[in-house]
Amino acid sequence: MEALKQRIIKEGKVMPNGILKVDGFINHQVDPQLMDACGQEFARRFANCGATKILTAEISGIAPALMAGRHMNLPVVYARKSKPITMPDQVYLTVAPSHTKGRLVELIISPEYLAGGEKILIIDDFLASGATIVGLARLAQTAGAKLVGIGTLIEKTFEGGRALLSYLGIPIVSLVRIASMEDYQIVFAD
Amino acid sequence: MEALKQRIIKEGKVMPNGILKVDGFINHQVDPQLMDACGQEFARRFANCGATKILTAEISGIAPALMAGRHMNLPVVYARKSKPITMPDQVYLTVAPSHTKGRLVELIISPEYLAGGEKILIIDDFLASGATIVGLARLAQTAGAKLVGIGTLIEKTFEGGRALLSYLGIPIVSLVRIASMEDYQIVFAD
Repeated sequence: MEALKQRIIKEGKVMPNGILKVDGFINHQVDPQLMDACGQEFARRFANCGATKILTAEISGIAPALMAGRHMNLPVVYARKSKPITMPDQVYLTVAPSHTKGRLVELIISPEYLAGGEKILIIDDFLASGATIVGLARLAQTAGAKLVGIGTLIEKTFEGGRALLSYLGIPIVSLVRIASMEDYQIVFAD
Repeated sequence: MEALKQRIIKEGKVMPNGILKVDGFINHQVDPQLMDACGQEFARRFANCGATKILTAEISGIAPALMAGRHMNLPVVYARKSKPITMPDQVYLTVAPSHTKGRLVELIISPEYLAGGEKILIIDDFLASGATIVGLARLAQTAGAKLVGIGTLIEKTFEGGRALLSYLGIPIVSLVRIASMEDYQIVFAD
C-alpha cells in the first residue's frame, strides 16, 4: 500500500536488533487517517473472507484492527496481556515470545467474546517471526473458531513468519513488505 | 449520547468494587461503529477547542481517542504503561493509581511526540476518580503543552473525578454520566 510505504520511507527508523521503529504513526503516536486507509484496504482485500469477527493483540494491533472492523462492520476483540478483574476466572490463555519486549508475554481472551463457530480474521501491526499471530491462532482454534485470514500492516519477509503460518492454509495479506533492513537500510520486497 | 447509553443499559454490568464492566463493546471486545459515533460526538463537542493533538492512555483509551482523531483530523498519542525498546532513554514518566488493576501504573510518553506549544485534548474511556487523567495532564504540562479539553465516554459522577480535574479550568465532556451503581443498579445522571 503506497501511502503506508511512503510513510515508512519518510519516518520509519531501523533500530539495533532488527526493530523497525514506526512510533510516529503506528506504535505510540498514531495517524488515524492512515490507519483508516489501511483498514479500508484490509476490507477490500478480505471482502469475501466471510469473517464474523476480527481478532488482534493489545496494544499495537488495536488501531489497524479497529479501522478494519469499521470498514467491514465487524466487532474487534483484542487479546489482553494481563487479566483484568472484569474477566471471568476461566479464560483462553497462551504465551508468545515478544520481539520488542524481549520476553514471553501472555495472550488472554475471555470465552465471552470468542465462541465456537466464529470466523476469525486476525489483524496485527507486524508480521515478523509470526509468534504473536501463532498465539492468536491457537486461542481461536482452542475456542473452536475458524480462521479465515491474516492481515498485517508491515511484513518483515526475512524473519520467516509467513512460512511459519503456512500450516494454517489461509490467506496472509501484508500491506507493505520489507525484504531487508541490513546496514540500517530499508529494502522493500515489492 | 443516546447510543452509548442504550448499549450500557443493554450490556453493561456492575461488578463488585464499583467496576462497570463494558468488555463487550469498549474494553476487550470493541464495537468500531459505536466508537466511531463517539469519536464524531467528541469532534462536535470539541470543534472549537483548537487542539493540535489528542492524548490518551493505553489500552482502553485508544479506541475512542483514535476515532476522535479521525473525525478531528488530529494525531493521537497514547501514553505507554511500560517503556518499549524503541523509546529514547529520556522520557516523560509519571505514576497513577489504576482502579481496575488495583496498583500504581506508569504513564510514559516520548518527548518525540509531546512538544511544548501543543494544544492537547485528552480522551479516555472512563472518568472515575480522575487519577489517570491527572497523570496525563501532568505529563502534558511537564512537556510545556497546553491542555484544552477532556473528553471521556463514561463518567461515574460519584467518584469525584470532575471536581479533582476542576483545577485545570478546561471543558470536561462525558458522553454518558452515571450517578450511582448502588445495589448493582446503574442510575444515569441525566
